[in-house]
Amino acid sequence: MKMTDLIAQKRDGGVLSTEEIQWMIQGFTEGSIPDYQMSAMCMAILLKGMDDREVLDLTTAMVNSGEVLDLSPIEGIKADKHSTGGVGDKTSLVLCPMVAACGLKIAKMSGRGLGHTGGTIDKLESFPGFSTELTEEQFFENVNRHGIAIMGQTADLAPADKKLYALRDVTGTVPSIPLIVSSIMSKKLASGSDVIVLDVKCGDGAFMKTLEGAEELADNLTRIGRLAGKKCAALITDMDQPLGWTVGNALEVKEALAVLRGEDPEGDLMLLCMSLGSLLLMEAGYADSYGEADAILREAVESGRALDKLAELVKAQGGDERAVYDPELLPRAPVTCEVPSTETGYVSRIHAEAVGLVSMGLGGGRAKKEDPIDPAVGVVLHKKLGDAVTKGESLATLHAASEDSAAEAAEKLRQCFEFSAVPVEKPPFIKKIL
Amino acid sequence: MKMTDLIAQKRDGGVLSTEEIQWMIQGFTEGSIPDYQMSAMCMAILLKGMDDREVLDLTTAMVNSGEVLDLSPIEGIKADKHSTGGVGDKTSLVLCPMVAACGLKIAKMSGRGLGHTGGTIDKLESFPGFSTELTEEQFFENVNRHGIAIMGQTADLAPADKKLYALRDVTGTVPSIPLIVSSIMSKKLASGSDVIVLDVKCGDGAFMKTLEGAEELADNLTRIGRLAGKKCAALITDMDQPLGWTVGNALEVKEALAVLRGEDPEGDLMLLCMSLGSLLLMEAGYADSYGEADAILREAVESGRALDKLAELVKAQGGDERAVYDPELLPRAPVTCEVPSTETGYVSRIHAEAVGLVSMGLGGGRAKKEDPIDPAVGVVLHKKLGDAVTKGESLATLHAASEDSAAEAAEKLRQCFEFSAVPVEKPPFIKKIL
Repeated sequence: MKMTDLIAQKRDGGVLSTEEIQWMIQGFTEGSIPDYQMSAMCMAILLKGMDDREVLDLTTAMVNSGEVLDLSPIEGIKADKHSTGGVGDKTSLVLCPMVAACGLKIAKMSGRGLGHTGGTIDKLESFPGFSTELTEEQFFENVNRHGIAIMGQTADLAPADKKLYALRDVTGTVPSIPLIVSSIMSKKLASGSDVIVLDVKCGDGAFMKTLEGAEELADNLTRIGRLAGKKCAALITDMDQPLGWTVGNALEVKEALAVLRGEDPEGDLMLLCMSLGSLLLMEAGYADSYGEADAILREAVESGRALDKLAELVKAQGGDERAVYDPELLPRAPVTCEVPSTETGYVSRIHAEAVGLVSMGLGGGRAKKEDPIDPAVGVVLHKKLGDAVTKGESLATLHAASEDSAAEAAEKLRQCFEFSAVPVEKPPFIKKIL
Repeated sequence: MKMTDLIAQKRDGGVLSTEEIQWMIQGFTEGSIPDYQMSAMCMAILLKGMDDREVLDLTTAMVNSGEVLDLSPIEGIKADKHSTGGVGDKTSLVLCPMVAACGLKIAKMSGRGLGHTGGTIDKLESFPGFSTELTEEQFFENVNRHGIAIMGQTADLAPADKKLYALRDVTGTVPSIPLIVSSIMSKKLASGSDVIVLDVKCGDGAFMKTLEGAEELADNLTRIGRLAGKKCAALITDMDQPLGWTVGNALEVKEALAVLRGEDPEGDLMLLCMSLGSLLLMEAGYADSYGEADAILREAVESGRALDKLAELVKAQGGDERAVYDPELLPRAPVTCEVPSTETGYVSRIHAEAVGLVSMGLGGGRAKKEDPIDPAVGVVLHKKLGDAVTKGESLATLHAASEDSAAEAAEKLRQCFEFSAVPVEKPPFIKKIL
């Protein structure tokens, strides 16, 4: 087999065989197929497409390039969730204990995040003492005992995807549905869960700017997931502004705790967690309808079992579970500062990406893997799209490590907002369920 | 400027600016733009195309990546010829002295060939003593004095093209009209001639298999050449069988000598040289019509001046010019061997590429730059497409270094021929003039 021939085949609109895709991914992972051939192939795939069989084969080949988690020591149905990424996304902190409280098993292997805020692990580490350094045996045991565990990524899951993504990132070959789908699904499949729910973000602050693009991606993700033998469902949700009210690690934890206590029941975050949770319960066969799933989840929150489940997780992994019930025990920034509005009117736009960068500038995110994260800093929004605001009223509170960094961030945050003199319609948050 | 942005621009069907193309080619030549980005860009160009301005800019940027020959010390109009490559192509050996005898200046800088046979330099070195090691001063002086000189490539002409071609060759990005055109024309423009004639081969043994493909290429080559300020014309000619009767260095020289003596006036080779020569004379303003150009060239051959011009070239560069008049002085292989036909009928196919490989197998070509070439060996065909043949009649004579290599080659050569029981129409040799 020659890589040049395979590239020419795809370039001319042809279909690659299962063997050809396996050979290509194996060679690329081992280094016998050089980057310059793989990048030409990625561009050919981007411009000529792949059929479902090819995408499934590509996904499978990337799964097989590394370890595959065998979750069979865990009893029951294992659930997982993936989001295509957004600003202020603390969904896992709410959703995971919520569905675990309903009996679905959450066995999550997580990496640390790059970008505006940390990943789920960084956020959970806001609980003093919380650790994700578990052995595989402890991990399985914890899930069996508590229904939920989260460990740092020790296994080498889908290394081909890691290498391929790094190459795509510098060769203009990121925005390809077959390549995005195989990248996301290879990591999900290698993680071993039975039921997967996907939150595809759509809008200004998301990778997919249009509903059509998000629909195509969501449709392909669920189809390939099902072809791979998984239960799969997806939501398309708005990312024209940050999700919920907070951006920053401990601040997001506090918001998640409030939602788990049943506060802000009409907010985006609760709506999203109820919807994703309902899809998981239905796909797992725990509910037959949205109404039934909704009732089960609502009971878990109202009874306090969802919050208790989070406390159970925190305690089982060495954290101070008292902070679950008393958020004052979480890290607090030394400086807070209000950002007053310079205008009277209605909020017409909040640049999500820019708000994320403000939080990162305060020290709440990392640009490089080695960067330390300040769990306490970040942004608490008081106004969201469509809200009325009067001049001088606070748009947001900044939590900062120093007066200087707060002042700098305040100036930038003001520029994240746009205003309109006339009322602005609030956009629907959930755009589609697949 | 970021290469990833440029790739994305072309990927999405956009147009690259002059500055962007210059920056890209300079960075690629210097090594600051890595191969994996350039190969993705090549695939995007292949699949999304380039407009004339972009192709001209790309060509110019590649010209400017190295030295540009300044032929101004040579008086008069300088002519050059390019062929897209074929088997048995000894056109330059006939055409160059022919048009030089008519007053056009031939200042040719030539590389050594890779493949079935050597390049023009290797063929000329069949003349004992012939050398292409000239200084630039000697080169100019020789052209001014004799109207013709050929020197080995010392200058670093279009190094960007050399590097880019090597990358395209292993990334499935060769068959792109904008990339082929800029590759060919950058070398031609860097060589400094005023009038350029292009022989675009078409058929089984050529890069372009179809007439449509060859037409598109020829059309683009001449258009870009003219946009670059050159006089430019092109022919599309048949390459469904080897050109002329011989494949192999000294054997091709002998055939060229015969044609220059006016023998085989109806053969492909003479037809091709008359047509290319006519285009050159007309583009240079030496003739107003084909009829006039044809008469001028015919007179140069019939008077013996074309043959004398070749002798003048050989002598001026240290070669034994007596061999021009007495081909028996050229290298001769120790072994010759006939290849009798196993069938009676009509020749329906001669696989040009395969005949080239037979000659290469005999030692007449090189796979690597360092390989030595045996000037004496090769193939003399006795039958061409459409010719009637009876069983036992010789299809070709092999010239070999040993009985063993002759026997091996005979077996392979037999397989280059296909036969038909019914008469086969001879294909037209010249398919189109542009």
